[in-house]
Amino acid sequence: MEPGPGAQAVPGRWGTVVCVLTGASRGFGRSLARLLAPRLGEGSVLMLLARSAAPLAELAAELRGGGTGAGLRVECVAADLGCEQGLRTAVAALREVLPAAPPGRLLLVNNAGSLGDISKSFLDLTDPDEINSYFAFNVTSALCLTSTALQAFGKRPGLSRTVVNISSLCAIKPFKNWALYCSGKASRDMMFQVLALEEPDVRVLNYAPGPLDTDMQLLARTKTRDPEMRQYFQSLQESGHLIDCTISAQKLVNLLEEDTFSSGAHVDFYDI
Amino acid sequence: MEPGPGAQAVPGRWGTVVCVLTGASRGFGRSLARLLAPRLGEGSVLMLLARSAAPLAELAAELRGGGTGAGLRVECVAADLGCEQGLRTAVAALREVLPAAPPGRLLLVNNAGSLGDISKSFLDLTDPDEINSYFAFNVTSALCLTSTALQAFGKRPGLSRTVVNISSLCAIKPFKNWALYCSGKASRDMMFQVLALEEPDVRVLNYAPGPLDTDMQLLARTKTRDPEMRQYFQSLQESGHLIDCTISAQKLVNLLEEDTFSSGAHVDFYDI
Repeated sequence: MEPGPGAQAVPGRWGTVVCVLTGASRGFGRSLARLLAPRLGEGSVLMLLARSAAPLAELAAELRGGGTGAGLRVECVAADLGCEQGLRTAVAALREVLPAAPPGRLLLVNNAGSLGDISKSFLDLTDPDEINSYFAFNVTSALCLTSTALQAFGKRPGLSRTVVNISSLCAIKPFKNWALYCSGKASRDMMFQVLALEEPDVRVLNYAPGPLDTDMQLLARTKTRDPEMRQYFQSLQESGHLIDCTISAQKLVNLLEEDTFSSGAHVDFYDI
Repeated sequence: MEPGPGAQAVPGRWGTVVCVLTGASRGFGRSLARLLAPRLGEGSVLMLLARSAAPLAELAAELRGGGTGAGLRVECVAADLGCEQGLRTAVAALREVLPAAPPGRLLLVNNAGSLGDISKSFLDLTDPDEINSYFAFNVTSALCLTSTALQAFGKRPGLSRTVVNISSLCAIKPFKNWALYCSGKASRDMMFQVLALEEPDVRVLNYAPGPLDTDMQLLARTKTRDPEMRQYFQSLQESGHLIDCTISAQKLVNLLEEDTFSSGAHVDFYDI
């Protein structure tokens, strides 16, 4: 049975896991890290990646001190996945840690992402550097980290490997002024569908977490160029329809525990 | 009534058009250029873009000499849209030619594209430069050329603007070893859906031309890593299911003439 959203974590329930989580320092990533840590058993490694070192270190200290598993190693990698050097740092960390990790399960969550400049219309998107940077961060880094992690962890009999793409409704539905975000998310969803086809023994999930109560939603309701769109996001907040990160992260944890999703599927918070 | 695939072009039928076509030197682009040229009326401009100058110049000479419209100006822009300098050259050409073009219709066809290295599996895609280059050519250049062309042509009352994205079944369906192509095409489709939402007076079409009998299909059946996929593409050819570029380009011309497609729609060769 799937545990309900309010279920308590059973320490170490997932056995030995190497868990890699990008965008871990705040918002959905941080909430997810807090839910995952107590589930990781003796010998597990939790690798947290984010741009900012300080909040990452704070979170790591909190998780280490949580008494949720003396055998859990929490590693922090401060790297800006949007720049060449940052991605190289992250890739090197995966190549160092993963092959040496104890046999068990690999869980990679590609959560890092950005909205792009939503104060611009499609017609304002004329700067190649801006667009290339957006795709480098939001698409290339997710692809490179996933291929690197799967290679570095290797295909060992009896070991399970799961890759999660934090997706969005925007992967399947266009929104005004969100050309970069929508096309980046559509691109990622498709990429992970191809992975699911190619690697039937890797479990692949495109999870759309719903409209979360995060800094990104604050940007959405204040910076989106189109006034009707701003109004729409404003009304989501005012009517209490924004979702708490922990609630949505718990649904993802439930999906992973239940492990019955069709590999490569796009699963939305509201579908389950 | 829509003219059938075998219908003869009526010279100048489309009035004065500024037509911009990327990837014009061969395959689908060249076939399309040959069908478009005789439809462009007095004062029209046909801008052909491609990487290779020689076949572009040859095509231009052929079109100019076709006697299909003494008033048609054919411009060639040799530019590699996958590199910074090439995109800059193309953008500069649009900014020079479009504002000075006579009032009429703008038709931009984003046809240029590449397959990526399909001899690789998803797990082999670990080089950020390779992936960034792929998206720079296949996504960024289409976005920049479209925004630039629409800006440069301007929104003038009574003038119509149409943007075509040459899409693929791969935009909506994953294929093994085609992670870059599928995710690039998915990204483009979504991007143009956002454009359709933002600019209701721009007609936007995502046209999937079907499996064309081109060099790209030759690559598909010889280089795709997965043997079953190679076999599938081989059988498409052997059973005569590859589509002649002119047949598919004619269907696109019919769609544009009929002009009843829903803006932003994905329309496949086999749908019509």
